[in-house]
Amino acid sequence: MERVSLLTDVRRTNDEIAAENQAIFRSVATLTINLMSAPGAGKTTVLERTILRLTDHYRFAVIEGDLQTSIDSERILALGVPAHQITTGSVCHLEARMVRKAITGFPPARVDLLFIENVGNLVCPAEFNLGEDLRVMVYSVVEGVEKPKKYPLMFYKADVVLLNKIDLVPYAGVELEKLRRNVIEVNPRAVIFPISCSTGEGVDAWTQWLTKRIGA
Amino acid sequence: MERVSLLTDVRRTNDEIAAENQAIFRSVATLTINLMSAPGAGKTTVLERTILRLTDHYRFAVIEGDLQTSIDSERILALGVPAHQITTGSVCHLEARMVRKAITGFPPARVDLLFIENVGNLVCPAEFNLGEDLRVMVYSVVEGVEKPKKYPLMFYKADVVLLNKIDLVPYAGVELEKLRRNVIEVNPRAVIFPISCSTGEGVDAWTQWLTKRIGA
Repeated sequence: MERVSLLTDVRRTNDEIAAENQAIFRSVATLTINLMSAPGAGKTTVLERTILRLTDHYRFAVIEGDLQTSIDSERILALGVPAHQITTGSVCHLEARMVRKAITGFPPARVDLLFIENVGNLVCPAEFNLGEDLRVMVYSVVEGVEKPKKYPLMFYKADVVLLNKIDLVPYAGVELEKLRRNVIEVNPRAVIFPISCSTGEGVDAWTQWLTKRIGA
Repeated sequence: MERVSLLTDVRRTNDEIAAENQAIFRSVATLTINLMSAPGAGKTTVLERTILRLTDHYRFAVIEGDLQTSIDSERILALGVPAHQITTGSVCHLEARMVRKAITGFPPARVDLLFIENVGNLVCPAEFNLGEDLRVMVYSVVEGVEKPKKYPLMFYKADVVLLNKIDLVPYAGVELEKLRRNVIEVNPRAVIFPISCSTGEGVDAWTQWLTKRIGA
């Protein structure tokens, strides 16, 4: 990390800085994940569940992106996991340069999994490569079945789509199969896991898939 | 509408164009509302319920903003209400210039209520005045109680906050009173209506308030 200049040149593009981030990530973490969703879809709760399930076997670190507050990084720190909060002010997404600044001296030790939780937004975060290995999207099924068509870029760019809050399916009047078909129509290579962070349903399937990606 | 030049000058600011929009809106509609929310909070469903409740007494028109698709404007047209779809491509919010272009010849007749449904996003739409009389925000209670703190500008700028999907409160583990307090902390002058478009609860209180604003 020390060998790469930390001066971020405003003339450089996001992709150029992201490429440098990727080199840094690989020197500090086995796998780096950009976690994206609309506001309130459950990104931080998914992170908490994932950490709790795997914490005995893997080392985590988390970079949190929010407009304001350190609520999310405090939730992660409460689990004993190193967390760094980026507050973007009025910027509706993370950019490579913000993450570049955040990873100076972070994480404090080498980790297996570095999660970057993006700002809650189904649009712009999809346009900014941060240098991650994987893009994981959390989608609350309560948001309805049509969103993959209406926000196609986010769904298209996701490697994994976690269909969260499936415990609410019986009450929200959502057809899970129709939602799944709409995701696949936009992104046939998406790996899809229906999950509930309340009941724990589906969380094992997701974390098992994840551990395979770490190469354990 | 015909008397105002429709050439939008790229050098003019959003607020300058919004001020012109406002003059146009007042010549075609009694009240113009900018309807905002995160994706999937229920803006279009709120619109449908509002229209169905008031259609015998008031004339509506709707401008729909989405990245892609005309799904929302088709839902409004199905109710016999004039609707115009703006597709923003990759732009995550409506801007005054987009609305200015949309209102050439729209609505086809003078109306009581002109709704502009913004792109689903809790961040950037709050930064762009479209020339509206009122800003109404729809917030799905399933998104949790902390969002007013995390996305303060949207809550701060809203004249009305509709706390939607309250039928899911018993299943989603959300404390409605805490959410309401968090909204008021960010915006003490917000008018708040807890509603459910599924059960109809609270919708009358909202539409009664709205009709008073039309000056009926």
